[in-house]
Amino acid sequence: MNWWLASCKVPSIEAKQAATERQLQLTKPTGSLSELENTAITLASLQNTPRPNVDAPWISIFAGDHGVMEENISAYPQAVTRQMLQNFTTGGACISVIAKEYNAHLQVIDCGSVGDTYEYAGVERHCIAPGTANFAKTVAMTEAQCAAAMSLGAKSVEDAVAKGASIYVAGEMGIGNTCSASAVACFLLNEPAEQLTGVGTGIRQEQLSHKKQVIDQAIALHQDYVAQDPFKALCAVGGLEIAAMTGAYIRCAQLGLAMVVDGFISTVSALVAVRLNPAVREWMLFGHQSAEYGHRRLLAELKAEPLLKLNLRLGEGSGAGAALGVIKLACSLHNHMATFAEAAVIGDKV
Amino acid sequence: MNWWLASCKVPSIEAKQAATERQLQLTKPTGSLSELENTAITLASLQNTPRPNVDAPWISIFAGDHGVMEENISAYPQAVTRQMLQNFTTGGACISVIAKEYNAHLQVIDCGSVGDTYEYAGVERHCIAPGTANFAKTVAMTEAQCAAAMSLGAKSVEDAVAKGASIYVAGEMGIGNTCSASAVACFLLNEPAEQLTGVGTGIRQEQLSHKKQVIDQAIALHQDYVAQDPFKALCAVGGLEIAAMTGAYIRCAQLGLAMVVDGFISTVSALVAVRLNPAVREWMLFGHQSAEYGHRRLLAELKAEPLLKLNLRLGEGSGAGAALGVIKLACSLHNHMATFAEAAVIGDKV
Repeated sequence: MNWWLASCKVPSIEAKQAATERQLQLTKPTGSLSELENTAITLASLQNTPRPNVDAPWISIFAGDHGVMEENISAYPQAVTRQMLQNFTTGGACISVIAKEYNAHLQVIDCGSVGDTYEYAGVERHCIAPGTANFAKTVAMTEAQCAAAMSLGAKSVEDAVAKGASIYVAGEMGIGNTCSASAVACFLLNEPAEQLTGVGTGIRQEQLSHKKQVIDQAIALHQDYVAQDPFKALCAVGGLEIAAMTGAYIRCAQLGLAMVVDGFISTVSALVAVRLNPAVREWMLFGHQSAEYGHRRLLAELKAEPLLKLNLRLGEGSGAGAALGVIKLACSLHNHMATFAEAAVIGDKV
Repeated sequence: MNWWLASCKVPSIEAKQAATERQLQLTKPTGSLSELENTAITLASLQNTPRPNVDAPWISIFAGDHGVMEENISAYPQAVTRQMLQNFTTGGACISVIAKEYNAHLQVIDCGSVGDTYEYAGVERHCIAPGTANFAKTVAMTEAQCAAAMSLGAKSVEDAVAKGASIYVAGEMGIGNTCSASAVACFLLNEPAEQLTGVGTGIRQEQLSHKKQVIDQAIALHQDYVAQDPFKALCAVGGLEIAAMTGAYIRCAQLGLAMVVDGFISTVSALVAVRLNPAVREWMLFGHQSAEYGHRRLLAELKAEPLLKLNLRLGEGSGAGAALGVIKLACSLHNHMATFAEAAVIGDKV
């Protein structure tokens, strides 16, 4: 049996109950902190403690290049994938600033980018493939490559757990990867490109039509091979970083680490993870509803309501990273507000 | 001329321009940080610097009691107003935890609560009136009382400016004050209670119908006196803390201090402020869309799009306070992300 089918941990009902009871005693009208209460209670059940925390967040960024870039489906050149790897570790990228803001450990993993070998301080370099193959012509990844990418994701979660992480965020970098993510989503939801394809980093309208055409043709090309199998959908049209995030999400649930899912691409990975192993869903918080067309549809499929809606469309785990601030506040309120008894405030309604 | 009609400062066009140019150079797809970019750019123009910050937030909570409590329109007893004053200063209230989380100065001002004289450490006690009069029977405040409450708000902003505050949040505490705020909103928007009245801290449906009836009857009672004058609407059916926040918002704009508007009650104060002195609007950021029915209508009137939608309905400035975290992150990203040139990343689209 593949490791990703193994069972997940079960969130603690006792911790959830204790956290719920505490919320009812805090000095505020019942239920008035709504999503902040729900977040604290959910995290309590995932961390198996009545007092949840975001003291040690862990952010892993997975990078990969995409063969489908040959089809002219992105606004930026492929070289940007590698250039951003350095920017992550030198502190200049959005997610680097977010990691610093919330005291998160930032891990940067190159699953397979195009170009010569290199050594960048702080980047864990792997080369499962020098980018995926062009899925407009052939499968993006062999099954062995896809499984290897998933294992990289799993390994990063094992690192996080070993270092005592309290919550996990996966992010991605890969020029062209909204095209790949949309194609995977089309397979999972059995819908045409029109329903699940957006402008990514900002292509023009005519390029968007072309991107949809490339995806629809790829779905037709790979339909027989995929045959509704989510793992094969990942192999056919996915990306190394997308597969890595899928592996990471599943491993979080297996090891009992709460995770925050990011935007469009991450949510595609999350949906693959849940299709492969449905109990993974329970371990997911959702950080941000992206501006990318199709994200809302994916969130609805996962019955997810993200904490933030700031219209971000950057990737890198930035939406989930921004949500760490809200989750941190939810925990602070849960842990530090006074109870009615402590504050001698009347808690009963008239 | 009343002080609140005096002109407001003008936000800096130069700082806005400089901040906009910087955003275009940061290592991300153009516009991909959306609301976070807009927030940093707006704050740059309000703080008159290309590098905005939330280093010294200031939160003032205004409390007051409401004569209309005689009409049985709230879920909680009036004594809670005073009890919460102590909870604010001893650190147990929601806004106390938020203030600590974001290193904000927390000022607590009792504008007029019901009960004997008292000394609570950290509470600035005033007694413009021991609560307002019951607006179901007479005007809630005399014009002199209302003006005095507005001056208390203005004074708090002067304190904040003197202490070097970088951004200002007003919050409120006053059992029964959604009833008062809804009545003011009905006058300003010329709509019946049905459109602008919600459950507040959590009344039952039959009590909600009664609350609407009380408001509609009060509108009929005070219609001739108010005659579309926003200040008189405040006097007729407003509250001491609602008037204080109106004064505070106007003074922020006059002294050039950026402010974050909170939920339903604060937005009513904000709308009165803008009706009295329209240029005040430019100095407002909006923190949170509340669960209270009617808030969306008020926000639309002010053409405001809040940063957060967490379904909070607590008051105390909690929604605006929570938004400080997002605004802080927006500033960190604006100030600390690398430019394309610094990171040697290709910034031009293909």
